[in-house]
Amino acid sequence: MVPHPPNEEHIDGQMVKMEVNLDDISGEWLGYVMDVLFEAGANDVFYTPIYMKKNRPGILLQLLCSKTSMEKMKEILLRETTTLGIRYYPLTVHRMERNFKKVQTDWGAVTVKQGISNGEVFQSSPEFEDCKEIAKRMNVPLKKVYEQVWQALAENRKSN
Amino acid sequence: MVPHPPNEEHIDGQMVKMEVNLDDISGEWLGYVMDVLFEAGANDVFYTPIYMKKNRPGILLQLLCSKTSMEKMKEILLRETTTLGIRYYPLTVHRMERNFKKVQTDWGAVTVKQGISNGEVFQSSPEFEDCKEIAKRMNVPLKKVYEQVWQALAENRKSN
Amino acid sequence: MVPHPPNEEHIDGQMVKMEVNLDDISGEWLGYVMDVLFEAGANDVFYTPIYMKKNRPGILLQLLCSKTSMEKMKEILLRETTTLGIRYYPLTVHRMERNFKKVQTDWGAVTVKQGISNGEVFQSSPEFEDCKEIAKRMNVPLKKVYEQVWQALAENRKSN
Amino acid sequence: MVPHPPNEEHIDGQMVKMEVNLDDISGEWLGYVMDVLFEAGANDVFYTPIYMKKNRPGILLQLLCSKTSMEKMKEILLRETTTLGIRYYPLTVHRMERNFKKVQTDWGAVTVKQGISNGEVFQSSPEFEDCKEIAKRMNVPLKKVYEQVWQALAENRKSN
Amino acid sequence: MVPHPPNEEHIDGQMVKMEVNLDDISGEWLGYVMDVLFEAGANDVFYTPIYMKKNRPGILLQLLCSKTSMEKMKEILLRETTTLGIRYYPLTVHRMERNFKKVQTDWGAVTVKQGISNGEVFQSSPEFEDCKEIAKRMNVPLKKVYEQVWQALAENRKSN
Amino acid sequence: MVPHPPNEEHIDGQMVKMEVNLDDISGEWLGYVMDVLFEAGANDVFYTPIYMKKNRPGILLQLLCSKTSMEKMKEILLRETTTLGIRYYPLTVHRMERNFKKVQTDWGAVTVKQGISNGEVFQSSPEFEDCKEIAKRMNVPLKKVYEQVWQALAENRKSN
Repeated sequence: MVPHPPNEEHIDGQMVKMEVNLDDISGEWLGYVMDVLFEAGANDVFYTPIYMKKNRPGILLQLLCSKTSMEKMKEILLRETTTLGIRYYPLTVHRMERNFKKVQTDWGAVTVKQGISNGEVFQSSPEFEDCKEIAKRMNVPLKKVYEQVWQALAENRKSN
Repeated sequence: MVPHPPNEEHIDGQMVKMEVNLDDISGEWLGYVMDVLFEAGANDVFYTPIYMKKNRPGILLQLLCSKTSMEKMKEILLRETTTLGIRYYPLTVHRMERNFKKVQTDWGAVTVKQGISNGEVFQSSPEFEDCKEIAKRMNVPLKKVYEQVWQALAENRKSN
Repeated sequence: MVPHPPNEEHIDGQMVKMEVNLDDISGEWLGYVMDVLFEAGANDVFYTPIYMKKNRPGILLQLLCSKTSMEKMKEILLRETTTLGIRYYPLTVHRMERNFKKVQTDWGAVTVKQGISNGEVFQSSPEFEDCKEIAKRMNVPLKKVYEQVWQALAENRKSN
Repeated sequence: MVPHPPNEEHIDGQMVKMEVNLDDISGEWLGYVMDVLFEAGANDVFYTPIYMKKNRPGILLQLLCSKTSMEKMKEILLRETTTLGIRYYPLTVHRMERNFKKVQTDWGAVTVKQGISNGEVFQSSPEFEDCKEIAKRMNVPLKKVYEQVWQALAENRKSN
Repeated sequence: MVPHPPNEEHIDGQMVKMEVNLDDISGEWLGYVMDVLFEAGANDVFYTPIYMKKNRPGILLQLLCSKTSMEKMKEILLRETTTLGIRYYPLTVHRMERNFKKVQTDWGAVTVKQGISNGEVFQSSPEFEDCKEIAKRMNVPLKKVYEQVWQALAENRKSN
Repeated sequence: MVPHPPNEEHIDGQMVKMEVNLDDISGEWLGYVMDVLFEAGANDVFYTPIYMKKNRPGILLQLLCSKTSMEKMKEILLRETTTLGIRYYPLTVHRMERNFKKVQTDWGAVTVKQGISNGEVFQSSPEFEDCKEIAKRMNVPLKKVYEQVWQALAENRKSN
């Protein structure tokens, strides 16, 4: 299998979703587990509040990863959570082409991530970390930074 | 203060809501805590999933009780949860008049709790425990038991 | 493949679930997206609150559709949400036979949807829109309309 | 008490929050109840999923209204839900000054609601219903309508 | 297929997840349904709050069972809930080896369930029902019972 | 008013809860807002998923602060969120005495926060940041760090 360039639009058939139900672990640990899983290469990790037996508020941990990294993820789940079982099933992911461009604000440049499908730009998302860095450094509201990025994007569209 | 008969419609100005945010306790313990609080006389106890700092899924415990039982509730919260603080504020409860009557199903009698305001019957709720007992004993779906109770209630209304 | 009559009990092996995680879109837009997806033929659309990285409250959008309408759904998700990826997996749906009958209330007829499996009626659900229309027109509580429908259903059962 | 003009910044000390816990009502009815309460003048109504006793997923209904409309709200809650009790407590609301202006998009005008405090514009929110109407009529994605509004707002800011 | 001993580590490829969306059933019934499904042999049952069409707060019921018990589960879902359709998909479960040992507390013995993978003990979970029984009988906080079990486990580790 | 030493048990009658309903802001921004509010001195900030009108999944932001910091919190909410109104009500907080001690693990010392009421130690909570630092530095599971702290606490209790 020849790998596609990672930012090109493609259908990925090598992904898996893993799930774990947890009712005997604290939120404190779960905040930590999410970070560890991301650092180890999980494509996504998220929690859902669930109602479990015996009136227990629990958490459903869901994790997306490639089949090749399943063993690593399983090991982390065993080491860092309280589970005795891990369930999983394959799924397909349609990923858009990603393109990165810079736009200017009064306070510096911000990267914008474009989502493209069949050559058409569907999304233009300011990179959160860039905007946050400016908001902190310049002591301006985050929403004002986003407003400037949206304005710059609009002007680019008009001049094209 | 002369107490009102407990099943009469009244405005209760002696209630309080207590709240605790919890991010370092398991769902297993929380299922237990709810039972202990109800047994100790809490008027109501319920949990809400909340998003806390550091990516932690937490639980907001809310508890309704009369001002006279606050100390008992506080002691249970300290003993049985992991909190270091308890917040509370007074609230008012408008309680409807409650009246209990029996209706017949093919499998035995079921208590129906009526909610009454200004002399008008607003609610007629089959008692869950009665219906459950019949469903278990007769091996019929719970919803069939409820259907029979609703039918009996409807016939009573027509013959009145 | 010969299609089955749509209201007959059958096992549908041509369905797919699509999922999208969203943390950069407002609830205002999501309310709109749900309507657009239903209008375009989605069998079901629903949202779950999820905990995403960096302390973000996000939404998991789940969508059920037939494999033949996947492309249309993908296009809407790209146009109307902020996602750069869509994941999906096949699933099977066991649908009950559906039968529609009319019952009479004091204020007019209401359609009841019956769910049938192996010839046995398992569910009898008053059609919400019918009941709502009566409640609005006659200015009666919605629950009183349902009560009348349940009563009519019970009388039908007895006279059979 | 002389009433303030409704769109001026002010502190409202005449508001109350009402709360009801519900475990014996369907989601179908709850969707309807929310509409009825808004039509009757509730300032806000929202639902929270809660964990109630006996493993029951329930709903906490919260409602904001002025003290003068409490009786009307109570009556609706009794008529349209299954509750036997309603709790409430006073609260204060600091409301910003609201100002409405029009901006132009390629497809027509959109109202923008401004939030103002101490004379400073803090928020500029495109009116959802205007944007939705355009998206439907012109068959364009809702987000493209918002983008045009944001651009027009930015240009207005620059030319001032 | 020769069955593995149930407490050995193994990969189970004969499992299925069933899902039902519910917006016309009360929490009272759902609490009951969960018990019925567990008693009939479901491996797990849990509820997630979901946002459904027409402003309805609904519940997603998820259920894990072996393929051989699917028919029984379907029948319960039809009898005890209001659904007209059930969806499902296969999944794989990696279950850890389970080993049970006893540890002593001041108030009696408690079973500890160990989770083992590749011969290594990853989890040691005090059995909730044992701890609860002691807490009730001795009138001590549940967390004090767990503390004693953790201490006994720690001492065992040191003396090995 | 003479201030109490901050770690002594006391009843604080100068607290307020502020609440904002949000349906036109992204999760990305909300993750940021929480951090800003904590940095500005909020005692607690947490989010609850709520069901708002027009099928919108929204967020209820709740914030605890002293009355003296209300103005600062209001300003942040206006600058960083999209709200046009902020509601609030006073509440009382009963805070336990807090005491900090050090315990030894194989990998270094960990601070334990004790919760004390009427001179009795009710809680002993390992400081998360200490445990996390060790887990990262020594590359051991977080739960193994906690186990060692619990063991050290148990041994301290026995030797007293």
